[in-house]
Amino acid sequence: MAQHGFFITFEGVEGAGKTTQARRLADALGSDVIVTREPGGTPISERIREIFLTADGITATTELLLIAAARAQHVAQVICPALEANKIVICDRFTDATVAYQGYRGGLDIALIHELNRAATCGITPDLTFVLDVPPEIGLRRQRQLQRNRLDKEALELHRKVREGYLAVAKAEPHRVQLIDAMRCPDAVHAALLTEYRKRVCGGRVPTLRDEDRLLSP
Amino acid sequence: MAQHGFFITFEGVEGAGKTTQARRLADALGSDVIVTREPGGTPISERIREIFLTADGITATTELLLIAAARAQHVAQVICPALEANKIVICDRFTDATVAYQGYRGGLDIALIHELNRAATCGITPDLTFVLDVPPEIGLRRQRQLQRNRLDKEALELHRKVREGYLAVAKAEPHRVQLIDAMRCPDAVHAALLTEYRKRVCGGRVPTLRDEDRLLSP
Repeated sequence: MAQHGFFITFEGVEGAGKTTQARRLADALGSDVIVTREPGGTPISERIREIFLTADGITATTELLLIAAARAQHVAQVICPALEANKIVICDRFTDATVAYQGYRGGLDIALIHELNRAATCGITPDLTFVLDVPPEIGLRRQRQLQRNRLDKEALELHRKVREGYLAVAKAEPHRVQLIDAMRCPDAVHAALLTEYRKRVCGGRVPTLRDEDRLLSP
Repeated sequence: MAQHGFFITFEGVEGAGKTTQARRLADALGSDVIVTREPGGTPISERIREIFLTADGITATTELLLIAAARAQHVAQVICPALEANKIVICDRFTDATVAYQGYRGGLDIALIHELNRAATCGITPDLTFVLDVPPEIGLRRQRQLQRNRLDKEALELHRKVREGYLAVAKAEPHRVQLIDAMRCPDAVHAALLTEYRKRVCGGRVPTLRDEDRLLSP
């Protein structure tokens, strides 16, 4: 499938600030931007998400396959059409989250996870991935004040494994994945994200509309 | 995972008589038998099944991954525990249905389907699979009087591809898969199934309780 547009994903442990920063980056980048999230992003994917957030006794493999199913629908219905329409797509969590959570934290086979990611995405990969890095104890403390669900109850040790997974992803694919120190204040993190985005699409200059037209429609 | 008990699956196009024959075989084999079905078989799997029977616009890949997710839960919660308790498990549709429907009919990659089947089943395979074979036009005519759902609306040509898939499965794994002519009357089909089952577990003799104890608890 031909990929146009520009595809940005946000990753990181709970409480790293992904959702806030994704929204701020979208606002800064203008009108041809859509913001979406995983797991979810389509009515079908939300129904699937609801199952694994609420089903008692679900196995780790079932959860992994449901995540892949939700992703397949999201990619087909939302991400691919938007990229083909030359939009910037910003997604709060994507394939790397599955490596970090189900692989590093959950202990499922990483090769199987990569295989499922390939199947679910038809080979679409992010052009740029921000891993917002905070020590897990900080993220967990922030997040506990925000929401209550199954993930929220996990112990700190599991969060450490997630972070380890994200650091491994960043190390393995430095051309795509940018590690961002998210302990700084939100304004500083936002500025860092914008700088990194501009580096990728405009070689470090502040992009003009003309630049972006050229770069986003190769 | 150690596999004891005896695992029988029923496969075939809609209207081949799988559900009826699975029930009759179970009744004939006694009390240590459980009958289950796919997709479904656990509350979580039924919720997953509900999504792909009712969701408009679902992609073929999403459906495939949901089927695998429902199967993973079913194997972990129902099939494996029953086999480990030395029961006979009879399942109305299993992994071969995914090859026939999503692979041969749906055109999805057969290698991916095998990979998902392996992931979902932890390597558990049926000891004996009955493919109840009827010409698709017969099965379709029978089935149309029984139920209404999305699969039921499919054209005859698609049913032909499913049958082709099942015939390929039977040819590829003759030691496991037994093709049964299901155009005969139900009593004749039942008798054929019982004979085949006995051949596998007792070398053709009518099994005694002692035989089955020995054979089902290796």
